[in-house]
Amino acid sequence: MNIKLIFTGQTDIDYIKNAIQEYVKRLHHYVNISIVIINPPKFNSKVPLSEIKFREGELILKHIVKEKEINGKGIKIILLDEKGTEFRSVEFASFIQKQMNMSLKSLIFIIGGAYGFSPQVYEMIQDRISISKMTFSHQLIRILLLEQIYRAFTIIKNEPYHNE
Amino acid sequence: MNIKLIFTGQTDIDYIKNAIQEYVKRLHHYVNISIVIINPPKFNSKVPLSEIKFREGELILKHIVKEKEINGKGIKIILLDEKGTEFRSVEFASFIQKQMNMSLKSLIFIIGGAYGFSPQVYEMIQDRISISKMTFSHQLIRILLLEQIYRAFTIIKNEPYHNE
Repeated sequence: MNIKLIFTGQTDIDYIKNAIQEYVKRLHHYVNISIVIINPPKFNSKVPLSEIKFREGELILKHIVKEKEINGKGIKIILLDEKGTEFRSVEFASFIQKQMNMSLKSLIFIIGGAYGFSPQVYEMIQDRISISKMTFSHQLIRILLLEQIYRAFTIIKNEPYHNE
Repeated sequence: MNIKLIFTGQTDIDYIKNAIQEYVKRLHHYVNISIVIINPPKFNSKVPLSEIKFREGELILKHIVKEKEINGKGIKIILLDEKGTEFRSVEFASFIQKQMNMSLKSLIFIIGGAYGFSPQVYEMIQDRISISKMTFSHQLIRILLLEQIYRAFTIIKNEPYHNE
């Protein structure tokens, strides 16, 4: 199984880049993981938020359509969303294990931009997980997702990292 | 009101240090914030976890006793704990606002070590908040707590940072 993370917008924050790099490096021991950065145009401050979300959403959905052409039904797509299901770390690990057992080709997690997802994205993708009831910057969420996926593999492999 | 964060153990991870530095700098515009690092001795791998937690707990409680001597009842102490209360960010902001309204002298958040708190710490400090149902490294939790406190002040001041 491949894991693909789709992030909306570049990051220019060094500590975020460094943390992402560190977890991707660690994860390569367990799984084929890749990151796709959706690159929306720079919007000026007069563009309404709904328009920004719509344009970002178009780029996300374009990517998903391509993904479906390649892998057919062998993909599962999940939005990171405050209103999604909350998991404990061991439950999240079981979830990933289950996807591997079903011979999924590609497990895809999508993190939106600063203003969240467009209605079109919500309509097309129903599966949602929430990392926290609290709102975090979409840049920080990238690190949190990576840490949880890394933690999940150490739980699956029964390696000493996770202490609850 | 002062905010004090008590962290258990040094961090030698650069991206964590940089993120902490960044949020502390931003927070200084809003509040007097300080960080105390509790420095337990290096334990060898034969020391049982309960012993590590106990020793770390002793150092935490020693600090709290001193804090109480100085500020009397004008302090509120909160443990960061997976089993604590979960807040939405706006609720967390209201909580901080409420403490300021009550003329609290010092609001103290404590993050434990890799293995959590000792029973003695739990016994002495009942207030607990949880950032996520998921378990994160105690190093990452430091950034998450700082981001939420920063976010809380932007919510309180009605500044454009928080988008829910």
